[in-house]
Amino acid sequence: MRTRDGDLTLLSIAQQPSRVKDMDFAPSPRAADLAQRVRAFIDTEIEPVEPAMLADVAARRARGEDAWPPPAALADLAAKARAQGLWNLFLPAGHGDAFAQRFGTDGGTGLSNLDYASVAEQMGRSALAPLVFNCNAPDTGNMEVLLKYGTPEQQEQWLHPLLDGRIRSTFLMTEPGVASSDATNMQATATLDGDEVVLDGRKWWSTGAGHPDCRIGVFMGLTDPSAHRHRQHSMVLVPLDAPGVTVERMLTALGQYDEPLGHGQVNLDAVRLPASNILAGPGRAFEIAQGRLGPGRVHHCMRLIGLAEKSLELACERSTQRVAFGKPIANLGGNRERLARARIAINQARLHVLHAAWKLDTVGIEGAQSEVSEIKAAVPQMACDVIDLAIQLHGGGGMSEDFPLAAAYAGARSLRLADGPDEVHLGVVARHLLRPYATAGGSR
Amino acid sequence: MRTRDGDLTLLSIAQQPSRVKDMDFAPSPRAADLAQRVRAFIDTEIEPVEPAMLADVAARRARGEDAWPPPAALADLAAKARAQGLWNLFLPAGHGDAFAQRFGTDGGTGLSNLDYASVAEQMGRSALAPLVFNCNAPDTGNMEVLLKYGTPEQQEQWLHPLLDGRIRSTFLMTEPGVASSDATNMQATATLDGDEVVLDGRKWWSTGAGHPDCRIGVFMGLTDPSAHRHRQHSMVLVPLDAPGVTVERMLTALGQYDEPLGHGQVNLDAVRLPASNILAGPGRAFEIAQGRLGPGRVHHCMRLIGLAEKSLELACERSTQRVAFGKPIANLGGNRERLARARIAINQARLHVLHAAWKLDTVGIEGAQSEVSEIKAAVPQMACDVIDLAIQLHGGGGMSEDFPLAAAYAGARSLRLADGPDEVHLGVVARHLLRPYATAGGSR
Amino acid sequence: MRTRDGDLTLLSIAQQPSRVKDMDFAPSPRAADLAQRVRAFIDTEIEPVEPAMLADVAARRARGEDAWPPPAALADLAAKARAQGLWNLFLPAGHGDAFAQRFGTDGGTGLSNLDYASVAEQMGRSALAPLVFNCNAPDTGNMEVLLKYGTPEQQEQWLHPLLDGRIRSTFLMTEPGVASSDATNMQATATLDGDEVVLDGRKWWSTGAGHPDCRIGVFMGLTDPSAHRHRQHSMVLVPLDAPGVTVERMLTALGQYDEPLGHGQVNLDAVRLPASNILAGPGRAFEIAQGRLGPGRVHHCMRLIGLAEKSLELACERSTQRVAFGKPIANLGGNRERLARARIAINQARLHVLHAAWKLDTVGIEGAQSEVSEIKAAVPQMACDVIDLAIQLHGGGGMSEDFPLAAAYAGARSLRLADGPDEVHLGVVARHLLRPYATAGGSR
Amino acid sequence: MRTRDGDLTLLSIAQQPSRVKDMDFAPSPRAADLAQRVRAFIDTEIEPVEPAMLADVAARRARGEDAWPPPAALADLAAKARAQGLWNLFLPAGHGDAFAQRFGTDGGTGLSNLDYASVAEQMGRSALAPLVFNCNAPDTGNMEVLLKYGTPEQQEQWLHPLLDGRIRSTFLMTEPGVASSDATNMQATATLDGDEVVLDGRKWWSTGAGHPDCRIGVFMGLTDPSAHRHRQHSMVLVPLDAPGVTVERMLTALGQYDEPLGHGQVNLDAVRLPASNILAGPGRAFEIAQGRLGPGRVHHCMRLIGLAEKSLELACERSTQRVAFGKPIANLGGNRERLARARIAINQARLHVLHAAWKLDTVGIEGAQSEVSEIKAAVPQMACDVIDLAIQLHGGGGMSEDFPLAAAYAGARSLRLADGPDEVHLGVVARHLLRPYATAGGSR
Repeated sequence: MRTRDGDLTLLSIAQQPSRVKDMDFAPSPRAADLAQRVRAFIDTEIEPVEPAMLADVAARRARGEDAWPPPAALADLAAKARAQGLWNLFLPAGHGDAFAQRFGTDGGTGLSNLDYASVAEQMGRSALAPLVFNCNAPDTGNMEVLLKYGTPEQQEQWLHPLLDGRIRSTFLMTEPGVASSDATNMQATATLDGDEVVLDGRKWWSTGAGHPDCRIGVFMGLTDPSAHRHRQHSMVLVPLDAPGVTVERMLTALGQYDEPLGHGQVNLDAVRLPASNILAGPGRAFEIAQGRLGPGRVHHCMRLIGLAEKSLELACERSTQRVAFGKPIANLGGNRERLARARIAINQARLHVLHAAWKLDTVGIEGAQSEVSEIKAAVPQMACDVIDLAIQLHGGGGMSEDFPLAAAYAGARSLRLADGPDEVHLGVVARHLLRPYATAGGSR
Repeated sequence: MRTRDGDLTLLSIAQQPSRVKDMDFAPSPRAADLAQRVRAFIDTEIEPVEPAMLADVAARRARGEDAWPPPAALADLAAKARAQGLWNLFLPAGHGDAFAQRFGTDGGTGLSNLDYASVAEQMGRSALAPLVFNCNAPDTGNMEVLLKYGTPEQQEQWLHPLLDGRIRSTFLMTEPGVASSDATNMQATATLDGDEVVLDGRKWWSTGAGHPDCRIGVFMGLTDPSAHRHRQHSMVLVPLDAPGVTVERMLTALGQYDEPLGHGQVNLDAVRLPASNILAGPGRAFEIAQGRLGPGRVHHCMRLIGLAEKSLELACERSTQRVAFGKPIANLGGNRERLARARIAINQARLHVLHAAWKLDTVGIEGAQSEVSEIKAAVPQMACDVIDLAIQLHGGGGMSEDFPLAAAYAGARSLRLADGPDEVHLGVVARHLLRPYATAGGSR
Repeated sequence: MRTRDGDLTLLSIAQQPSRVKDMDFAPSPRAADLAQRVRAFIDTEIEPVEPAMLADVAARRARGEDAWPPPAALADLAAKARAQGLWNLFLPAGHGDAFAQRFGTDGGTGLSNLDYASVAEQMGRSALAPLVFNCNAPDTGNMEVLLKYGTPEQQEQWLHPLLDGRIRSTFLMTEPGVASSDATNMQATATLDGDEVVLDGRKWWSTGAGHPDCRIGVFMGLTDPSAHRHRQHSMVLVPLDAPGVTVERMLTALGQYDEPLGHGQVNLDAVRLPASNILAGPGRAFEIAQGRLGPGRVHHCMRLIGLAEKSLELACERSTQRVAFGKPIANLGGNRERLARARIAINQARLHVLHAAWKLDTVGIEGAQSEVSEIKAAVPQMACDVIDLAIQLHGGGGMSEDFPLAAAYAGARSLRLADGPDEVHLGVVARHLLRPYATAGGSR
Repeated sequence: MRTRDGDLTLLSIAQQPSRVKDMDFAPSPRAADLAQRVRAFIDTEIEPVEPAMLADVAARRARGEDAWPPPAALADLAAKARAQGLWNLFLPAGHGDAFAQRFGTDGGTGLSNLDYASVAEQMGRSALAPLVFNCNAPDTGNMEVLLKYGTPEQQEQWLHPLLDGRIRSTFLMTEPGVASSDATNMQATATLDGDEVVLDGRKWWSTGAGHPDCRIGVFMGLTDPSAHRHRQHSMVLVPLDAPGVTVERMLTALGQYDEPLGHGQVNLDAVRLPASNILAGPGRAFEIAQGRLGPGRVHHCMRLIGLAEKSLELACERSTQRVAFGKPIANLGGNRERLARARIAINQARLHVLHAAWKLDTVGIEGAQSEVSEIKAAVPQMACDVIDLAIQLHGGGGMSEDFPLAAAYAGARSLRLADGPDEVHLGVVARHLLRPYATAGGSR
């Protein structure tokens, strides 16, 4: 009888007692405490001022002033959060412990993915909270890369200021000219030239590139076309003030600039850097990206759970407060059923994300590939659906900037494309699912 | 045996030979000719310059300049369209024939709803085309109201310049303070005071209010709370320069300002006007709105068919041109099936809209209530789905302003709320469907 | 500029005036009259006795008696229908006129596909009506094949008794051993041996094979593996009493035997027949099948519209008559919305089917390929959804044999597989949709 | 600030440390061992013979013989299972420990709901396994009721033989004459008459009533219309051989009789019994039903997870083995994506069910109301979808009795109605979700 190691039934887990002994999705006491404090901080410090901060940005934009400098209050909030030890909580267990002690003020080791899930969910409730807690993409991923692959000098120069929130970073991977869902399509180059590396190409959707403090990019480009398919590309640290680097424009995503980070289109024209800027050496880009994107995708999903939960709360609030045809809107037509289905969808998705985080913690990125792709394919769509329902229940207001829903929708919708479109992740899930079955009559 | 006059089977139609004799969805030769000419005009005159016009607006907005004045080229295009007789084609048969001859240069009578469908579908392909052909909401609806209910003086003062495209108008109905899906919630007032009427209240989603040429609004407010539920409100012509009228701000819909028309929030503070500005006299607002919104909803759906068709074309183009994992994107995973389903959905929706237009033409608004609500409940969602697919197949680019898809999505999504949310229209459909069945055990 | 002949917009139709001049979906007066008479016959003659007839079959089955002989009343109903001229109405215009005059008693020529649509929709309301009117699959398709390809002798021997309803037939195409969605997989053989042909193989889902009067099968098998892919197979008339033919068993489809026709598994073991039994000569099977399946698929969809309409009526009736939690079930939760959506879905599907029938009439099978596949991919699923809703609103009763819904569901669900699964038809639609776009980077 | 105790975020859990400390979804070592042994038993003992057993039943039915006596092999399998301690594993912790030791041979205490989940999932893979392990509905629920409310004499007379599998039972609640989703609609009566109780009414969907060994029913009827809404009904033990009890007929569900248990329609005509047969005394029926249905619903969902998992395995197997158009079916069109989505849906649903079971274990039925309703509203639909996909990938075979899929679909579809239709459970979820929000403008 064929064994199917790939399938994910509890039984298959149960057959490996060592893996199952702590399938405990409750946050540790420390994480529960942190999640509560993060939530309290958001509820009492951020939410009361966030609408005004966002409105200020919008007003500056509308007046044609520079909308990119973050509201001053943001820095104050960040300082306050750091003073309370709510800082750099993303730092992973094992790798970042020393940094967690030095740059977080929580004093402890890094959190497990499972523990971070409860914390990140709370951060997802607010557009600005991730920045306040220095836990926003793509800085987190870039910091993880520097943590794992940076030389002491690179860490000194870039990682420390990032951990302090003094500078920001961007990730230069997606390209306008090709279907970037297939990373091997990449056309940008990182050409070795003696002890230098020369970068050429155009990137976009480089989140963070709009921030006035953005100083450093992590660039991915082709180095050696003759190498094995997954050893051709290099990842290179590129200071944004290096000659040849131009932020050509900032993009909107469904109409949102997402200040103060934003999404840039960045051109690199014969950007010449020391070869030591190549992280981990030439040809390691895919390996690094793999390690960077796994937890990053889980973080996105964690935050989306919080965003969906917040949107559902807004939907409940609005639909119970407004009356039409003699009833609260919640009680009209199929609204109660839709709200119930949203409740179900979020609860299922949260458990799914926790499970994936637990898998990451217990068997690592390689072993959790299917689980990570499962949530990446499912959670953004779930969040879109819940937010769309919230918009509908808000009526016209839900489409406007008077509520955070339009921006929330744009963010969730973007994540059906960013870090791999839904379809690519479904393909990964299918590959794992079908692996134990020998296929007849030829390959895919 | 119970007869079910309400049901829409062909048989029920067949039983009324007079109604069925021309269930012919083909446009008349004249309409087919107009549709072809409109399409050719869009293809050759508008599409080549539209991206630059929209980019110019966006650039002005980004630079903090006034983005509301329409691009100069728009007026030239409009003049050219008018010279070709492609002007005011929305003018309804029967009512607008004299105007059609005078203000259209097509020389003929107004088009039937069915004939206009083919024309309007073409206009829906482009964001600016409706303006170019002077067939954009809400001006069309406001012109129809003036045509039907305006005094000769009012027609002289407001209708003629509107038909000439010299001024623009707005519709002041939806309110920020209440659930406006139930029009009886309306809080704005139109109080009679001798031979004057005094308007008070705040309105929003007043499309057109951003246009520099916007001069006149059609306002709806409460006049007589003691009258019958549908006779309490009046519709009043309000010049936008009347004292007490303030456009407080322009709203974004999913991040879109939709210049040059835009969606305004308008405050009316003790705006005093001659009572003759009340269209058709006090208490007629619901009756007028009913007549205004019926064809308006069909026009929206017609344009959405064109918008969905255009989006599907873009999706086909992009997904056959870009390659990932060794195949055109169209041929990956379930993409071909999704494209096929979009093809099916558009084709079904188009026939559905044509049928509703035919119903409007043959039995009038009262008789076509279910059909109009059916398409209003179904077509915007269909368009959202098709556009969303097109976005997904475009990757990140689809979210940006490089393609018209983000704006298209915002427009289609808005129409799941504007002119009655989906749920209200489903309620109308259900009421008609269930009418022949006596319900047991009490009412709804 | 690329022309896209394949797209189905009204404009493309409008550009070909000759094709558009009669896009009139109303049935002709004659068809309207026939549809009304068929409906009246079903309402007054069939519906009152059908439950008892079906219960009698079920009771015989339950008692272990032979449930296959049709209820005696069926023959009486058929005679009555024929006497009223409601007989063989499926006979196609052009080909079957002589037969329509001789074997129908309607005296006229065959109906167009569009005209037959209204008639067939009515028949679809009842499980037994198609048999009563001698318009049931697969006899209709087999008769059309005999009409088009049969020799006078074959027509005398098989077609005339079929037209009289004296015998029944079956279609021997699908095979248990291979994925029959790809007809080229077929393993059964029709080997030429001098002036004889020898049939070998096992077929299943041979509808009609359970009827006691089933006498003739239309068999499809491989004759010449060296010929062009679509010229390898032959279609052969095989009398069911020929030596070597065994009906091995009758299959259930979602638990339904569908007496009196049923779905048989038929073995053919060295069945030796005159070569003249090969319809139109060796190697023509695909060509014949193509012609047979096109209208057949449209007929299925027409009947499904009627079945869905009938199911919706039952849903409305039950849900307005039964009360729970103080309200008619229709008024609970999202039920009204779901009923409204069913109304919309049926109306869209009906128009879609009429359009496909009109396409078949005006440009033939070849030109209507996409349209036929569109409805075949969409209508069975729509019918499943509507019937499923009706089941849900009936509660447990809907699952039982007390209502025709369980059988209706099984029938509609089967049609997501029979005559090509949904996925194959979506593939056809996609092929037509994408044809005008040259694909980059290689083929599918 | 309003507190929302009802919401289900992890944070709310985290705020109650006592509740969160063991949110560990891994089965205990004992449960993991039992789940593995149950699975091994199914794989090696049941699956190899099940098709033949089911075919034997079908053949008897087809021949008109009595199909209700269970296959002889079933008793042997049950004996073997019991000998291995795989017997009555459903017995709940706390209540059934003595019985678990006596009637299970596992020797231990009852399993927690969470522990039973892993075991029940395995049983759900097979149609007959629940019977083999004496863990089938409705016997389990009836045994639990007897365990909790039965007198020692009643336990001696009915519970012990049920625990031994010597007799079977049925549950007499749903009625053909009213919408039974609202239990207060119930028309059957349990009238007190001195020290006797007299039962009248007609029940249906009484599962188990077809089994030759079915001896006892648990009947629910109206006793005191003047009492509080939830104190009017009584639950009464009714021996099936009591005068006045008639099993009028066995029902099919989507064509399935589901022998050997089946679903009966049972008439009770002046059935006179000692008043001591009223469980827990008059007026306690709702209270008892509530306790009975909570875990029962979770058991159904657990088994559906296994059924869906098994169906997905069959889908993978078939679609990788059969070839069409030159590829394994799995690799055609959107099939891989659909399989991946099924993988995701099952995984989410499993975690959801485990969470609900954990909630039942930690806070009891009252506290887990929303969770139980969430899974009851979501899991049967999920299972239907997965099974439907499996059917589609099997082609015609999937509709037949050659695969267990048609029966699986009927079973899963029934559970969208049984024990409360989806809509009722969504209503419960919505009530809990909206409870913290005070509604404006009147009630529901």
